[in-house]
Amino acid sequence: MKMDKDTLKREEPWRQRKTVVFMSDFGYQDGAVSAMHGVADQVDSSLKLEDLTHDIPQFNIWEASYRLIQTVEYWAPGTVFVSVVDPGVGSERESVAVLLSSGHIIVTPDNGTLSHVAKGIGILERRRISEVTNRLKDSQRSYTFYGRDVYAYTGARLAAGVITFDEVGPLLDNEPVMLEMNDPLSEDGCITGSIDILDTRYGSLWTNIPDTLFFSSGFSYGDKIRVDIEYRDRTVYGCTLPFCRNFTEVEKGESLIYINSLLDVGIAVNQGSFTDLYGVKTGMGWKIRFSRI
Amino acid sequence: MKMDKDTLKREEPWRQRKTVVFMSDFGYQDGAVSAMHGVADQVDSSLKLEDLTHDIPQFNIWEASYRLIQTVEYWAPGTVFVSVVDPGVGSERESVAVLLSSGHIIVTPDNGTLSHVAKGIGILERRRISEVTNRLKDSQRSYTFYGRDVYAYTGARLAAGVITFDEVGPLLDNEPVMLEMNDPLSEDGCITGSIDILDTRYGSLWTNIPDTLFFSSGFSYGDKIRVDIEYRDRTVYGCTLPFCRNFTEVEKGESLIYINSLLDVGIAVNQGSFTDLYGVKTGMGWKIRFSRI
Amino acid sequence: MKMDKDTLKREEPWRQRKTVVFMSDFGYQDGAVSAMHGVADQVDSSLKLEDLTHDIPQFNIWEASYRLIQTVEYWAPGTVFVSVVDPGVGSERESVAVLLSSGHIIVTPDNGTLSHVAKGIGILERRRISEVTNRLKDSQRSYTFYGRDVYAYTGARLAAGVITFDEVGPLLDNEPVMLEMNDPLSEDGCITGSIDILDTRYGSLWTNIPDTLFFSSGFSYGDKIRVDIEYRDRTVYGCTLPFCRNFTEVEKGESLIYINSLLDVGIAVNQGSFTDLYGVKTGMGWKIRFSRI
Repeated sequence: MKMDKDTLKREEPWRQRKTVVFMSDFGYQDGAVSAMHGVADQVDSSLKLEDLTHDIPQFNIWEASYRLIQTVEYWAPGTVFVSVVDPGVGSERESVAVLLSSGHIIVTPDNGTLSHVAKGIGILERRRISEVTNRLKDSQRSYTFYGRDVYAYTGARLAAGVITFDEVGPLLDNEPVMLEMNDPLSEDGCITGSIDILDTRYGSLWTNIPDTLFFSSGFSYGDKIRVDIEYRDRTVYGCTLPFCRNFTEVEKGESLIYINSLLDVGIAVNQGSFTDLYGVKTGMGWKIRFSRI
Repeated sequence: MKMDKDTLKREEPWRQRKTVVFMSDFGYQDGAVSAMHGVADQVDSSLKLEDLTHDIPQFNIWEASYRLIQTVEYWAPGTVFVSVVDPGVGSERESVAVLLSSGHIIVTPDNGTLSHVAKGIGILERRRISEVTNRLKDSQRSYTFYGRDVYAYTGARLAAGVITFDEVGPLLDNEPVMLEMNDPLSEDGCITGSIDILDTRYGSLWTNIPDTLFFSSGFSYGDKIRVDIEYRDRTVYGCTLPFCRNFTEVEKGESLIYINSLLDVGIAVNQGSFTDLYGVKTGMGWKIRFSRI
Repeated sequence: MKMDKDTLKREEPWRQRKTVVFMSDFGYQDGAVSAMHGVADQVDSSLKLEDLTHDIPQFNIWEASYRLIQTVEYWAPGTVFVSVVDPGVGSERESVAVLLSSGHIIVTPDNGTLSHVAKGIGILERRRISEVTNRLKDSQRSYTFYGRDVYAYTGARLAAGVITFDEVGPLLDNEPVMLEMNDPLSEDGCITGSIDILDTRYGSLWTNIPDTLFFSSGFSYGDKIRVDIEYRDRTVYGCTLPFCRNFTEVEKGESLIYINSLLDVGIAVNQGSFTDLYGVKTGMGWKIRFSRI
């Protein structure tokens, strides 16, 4: 659902939601996540504090960006996200808050974390966080934990209605930092795409090919489809797989093509791990092609 | 505390609790858990959203079932649990909601996850989830994430009072799918039982032998007791251990018999891991016998 | 901010906060953490239940103590912490609740867990938990899960205002159990300290040297400083490192001295792990010295 900027800024749905969802690469082993929650709770104890994940691999901006697009729209418009994957903490990278056309707000370092939502949802407005006003009191000597001192604090103050979106800081009219992202290509009944990410827990591969493109290219449930996977122009996997609604349409241990929970095309092994079995990984340099047999 | 079905369905304690507790085998590394929370929050932002664990080993229905019996009754009657360990996602297995005689509700695939609560607490009523009405709007093209699209959504709608328990769907009058579970046997002053599960973090073994049976068979705190462990009829451990109230009654690194936090008999090493030291594991095929020396 | 005992006990800020923050070494794999939340929720369903971490290494009291000082003061005064790292569970160690001069309450076994807050914040009052009144109903047969049966229950009853701080139990007028802690030493422009803990996720070392002592000893941002690390009087690392505000002032993979988020001196590798690269660890026996070149 696309929303209008003026309506959003007038209605400020975040002040009704009062919900902050945190994401980081901090892990769960120390007090860092709890310190962020505590800072937000001190801003307004009626805020609802939730988490997306704090197990983003360290410094992996691509994965942070992907986990946001995977999750944001399952939360109500007006939900505020605070994302802290920040390898350049304290350096020249900008600290920003953005208003999405879905009505969500994201507070984050502007380091590529916004790539997927910028492309997939759309950014209505982006503002640099003024650290003079939007920084936890007495935290000026700390340069290495913006997540706690600036991002959690600013996200909480937005969700609590302490500041308006405009009071975050000056409007930025350039583009946010974008990671390189390729579009899938449908040609002569073949589709070529990239392997964006691993469904970590299960070892399935998620491509950047939406189900709509897959179906409109002529593939249907029940088809046997040729799958070729290349890494830097070298073929590492080639096989014909069935296109199934459910994993259980193949035997345990067998591979299949399916539509994942984001409605993109995926490759999996029923009750097994495709990545472990075939050594196929994700990210830059990995390409996948589906073709009719 | 056992409750009456009619009273429960009339009083609907879940509408007062407004609490949903989630469990799954999704892990914490991506946005899947947060997407479930988001869906529930959209149903009613005043719901309290909690988690049991999301680190159930993938597809391990036995462990899901055990973690429910370990936890459910420490939450108030009326708390709604959403359990998603679902190797057969999208297949013919039923999606159900059950009302327990303790007043709790569990929403889950009916794949064995209900075994321990069915036996240990008792199911008053079980209904198939009608996916026509009880499915997240516009999620019909997604077949692989029932946790988000059906279970979280239905659990939240129950807890929020949007639907009554009857409105979940048609009553099922057959039995839920049950995993094979053995009863402990007391005979001639010996007790034989199974090793149900590992106290994962500490490496202790938890048996299916309740403390009441252990005491009524004549064992007392302070006794030295013979312990024999078999795997598929082959003895893998045999030793005489003291039966203690506390781990600290033996030296660090020594083994003991104790009553665990579910009031079942357990075997542990003080500040060590019994499973690592002796290679004893849990589940099918593992038997333990306690006898007088 | 230091608070007065009489004011705190009269105003009882915990009854306004209604917030309990849990910490333990239970991990996230079973139902133990959720059982504690459930017990607290049954005491008062309007309590806010939060977590610090449950990944304290098993039985590591030092780390539990450190994680408290790292986090407590980012939560509002009146927040109640329940800490359960309890290798002596059920033994003679005392179960206590303490009121800190910062206005926070901690419920914990008195086994050293209070060391850092006792020294760094200050304990105003310490009371032994009377288990006759402050124990979950019907839990008397359980001796191995005080976290659930006593600590979560007592913490929740304090935060809910069911009991006053005095009703926890008898006043203790001796000192809490303290772990051995060394003070940093500044002499002739050199500073010697201990390496207290690892910033687990990133592999950085955190010393016990506050930034104020570092600056007052004459070190300034931009300086090149000699760093020597010893383990039990044997030198294991010696190098000259720059003292930086941000990690990004050195190249990726290079080491630096910085001020961490607790405003203590730390050693890190930009986007790398100091502990992995140089095998330097933390705790007893590790010493670090900074000197002018």
